[in-house]
Amino acid sequence: MRMSKFWSRTAIEANPYVPGEQPYEVDIVKLNTNENPYPPSPKALEAMKQMVNSDLRKYPTPTVNSLKNVIADRESVNYEQVFVGNGSDEVLAFAFQTFFEPNEAIKFPDITYSFYPVYAKLYKIPYQEVPLQEDFTIDVEGMKRSTGGVIFPNPNAPTGIALPIESIEEILQGNSNNVVIIDEAYVEFGAESAVQLVDYYPNLLITKTLSKSHALAGIRVGYAIGHVKLIEGIERVKNSFNSYTMDRISIKGAEAALRDEAYYANVLDQVVKTRSWVKESLKELGFLVLNSNANFVFVQPVGIEASVLYRMMKKEGIYLRYFNKPNLDSYIRITIGTNEEMEELVRKVERVLNQQIN
Amino acid sequence: MRMSKFWSRTAIEANPYVPGEQPYEVDIVKLNTNENPYPPSPKALEAMKQMVNSDLRKYPTPTVNSLKNVIADRESVNYEQVFVGNGSDEVLAFAFQTFFEPNEAIKFPDITYSFYPVYAKLYKIPYQEVPLQEDFTIDVEGMKRSTGGVIFPNPNAPTGIALPIESIEEILQGNSNNVVIIDEAYVEFGAESAVQLVDYYPNLLITKTLSKSHALAGIRVGYAIGHVKLIEGIERVKNSFNSYTMDRISIKGAEAALRDEAYYANVLDQVVKTRSWVKESLKELGFLVLNSNANFVFVQPVGIEASVLYRMMKKEGIYLRYFNKPNLDSYIRITIGTNEEMEELVRKVERVLNQQIN
Repeated sequence: MRMSKFWSRTAIEANPYVPGEQPYEVDIVKLNTNENPYPPSPKALEAMKQMVNSDLRKYPTPTVNSLKNVIADRESVNYEQVFVGNGSDEVLAFAFQTFFEPNEAIKFPDITYSFYPVYAKLYKIPYQEVPLQEDFTIDVEGMKRSTGGVIFPNPNAPTGIALPIESIEEILQGNSNNVVIIDEAYVEFGAESAVQLVDYYPNLLITKTLSKSHALAGIRVGYAIGHVKLIEGIERVKNSFNSYTMDRISIKGAEAALRDEAYYANVLDQVVKTRSWVKESLKELGFLVLNSNANFVFVQPVGIEASVLYRMMKKEGIYLRYFNKPNLDSYIRITIGTNEEMEELVRKVERVLNQQIN
Repeated sequence: MRMSKFWSRTAIEANPYVPGEQPYEVDIVKLNTNENPYPPSPKALEAMKQMVNSDLRKYPTPTVNSLKNVIADRESVNYEQVFVGNGSDEVLAFAFQTFFEPNEAIKFPDITYSFYPVYAKLYKIPYQEVPLQEDFTIDVEGMKRSTGGVIFPNPNAPTGIALPIESIEEILQGNSNNVVIIDEAYVEFGAESAVQLVDYYPNLLITKTLSKSHALAGIRVGYAIGHVKLIEGIERVKNSFNSYTMDRISIKGAEAALRDEAYYANVLDQVVKTRSWVKESLKELGFLVLNSNANFVFVQPVGIEASVLYRMMKKEGIYLRYFNKPNLDSYIRITIGTNEEMEELVRKVERVLNQQIN
């Protein structure tokens, strides 16, 4: 990186996140960014088409109360306990800025969503990475007594392992003077949500996204649930940044999607079923397969280097996610696609393994 | 405001922007948020409808090169000189964070877009407000020799008065060690763009929006043009905040809109024509009317308090923008609507003035 004399210290010290590739080719099996393999609800698509009209000349409502009400209904909270944003990445960025402070170290697991250290750098928040336990679960004891706050995903990424609600309560009680952010991007695929705890813990903020569970990564909608005063704080920061972070079409699409519970119950069920046999198939190939509750599996190949498998699968037209980082570089993250896609994956992995042996 | 012990200093010290009202009622004449009264290009609407399909399950491309290429074509620059974001408010927020530094005061006019001091508070950037000259134009001499950088809109808001390109060059030359941001939100309505200068001034960043000129406030698209290294800097900050700030539908809509130059030439022409007679009509009523090159006029009513006129028009179903702030509180900002809307406005203002006199 060649710097510029015009960059601020923030820009110079930033360590931007690198998302998984979004190839333009259409004949690729994309198992690298945890997208849902099924289409969004037809009702959501219809609602968005209806919104494509001359009203787009006007700004959205900056408060987005209509969407907040739909979310409040779904989550059994008050709409004033809801914040909405342009994807949960944006919601998390605002939350870092609202609740974490320079000079007060926050805690997150050492193996986790790799955007957290990026936000911390951007906002100059020091952090302590708490090592996972030997079984790859989050160290509950280690997450207590933070100076500046706590953040972790549940299920964790990229392990996919979920923490039971009792452990979450322990972490909340062990950080009563600081905000604990639980990033539930993958919770709908089989973990227990901590939203049931918001009325008991004023230091609890939960973030969710429609990208994965609702097959709507393309319209960028995320939200947060928490105590009214936490939400008010994030609103203050958001309204100092951009009055209208959400567009009219995404708002309508999100509302219709969240209302179509029957459709998504079916989609989630299908992903969970596919995940189940994919885990078994990869174990049969000798891989170490962590017990994921998310829409991906995190596996350690045996008989082949993870980086080699990643490259060979890419040549075969299957994109997986490989993290070239300490602790992670012997693993591969595989998004759960359709049954057909996963059958192709297992078949091709098997073939590659056989070639390695011979 | 009752604070929370969980808020960061940033959240506590924030002074959020308050945008113009977005009433839900449909029978209102909305002249308060500088929206375009005409619908977006039919080609843009069609492109967005086409994009509402099952591909929305996938993330957008984080680089958004397809849209950058369309903008580069239009502005006669390279696509690497283009940054795109979720409305120009977001683009400006990133630019503040990328180019301005705590402890180094930036300069902007004392009468200007009221979001600038909000960003400055959010990022802890000190600022010096340079008073406008007596004729309400920006004080070119006063904008030179900043410590930390410069930002101003051209045309200025809410005066609508444009600065000639020679004055902009003077300001650029007078700040060669700092970035000068020119916010051209309203430039398409009749001012000269400084994009022609980007290859000569590595310290020049220009921001634009599709909200007003392209009647697309509802889909949130803004962009910046500048030297490759300035764009690289903003990308670093953006990619530390949210990998995908723009959604798939907005990207497609923006591309189609920017390509439909014939449609928008006609729309802009119509707004300029309407502005011309509205200025004359309000002058005939005795109002002081600044010489706006934007899609609004900034007027000082005579024979009635600005705040009273604002309230009376609201009762009549016409929303205008009133700023209850020193220097601004004797003025009203009126967005240029359709001819019919503006005829109704002038008629109702006239009636209210007559009632005041009698």
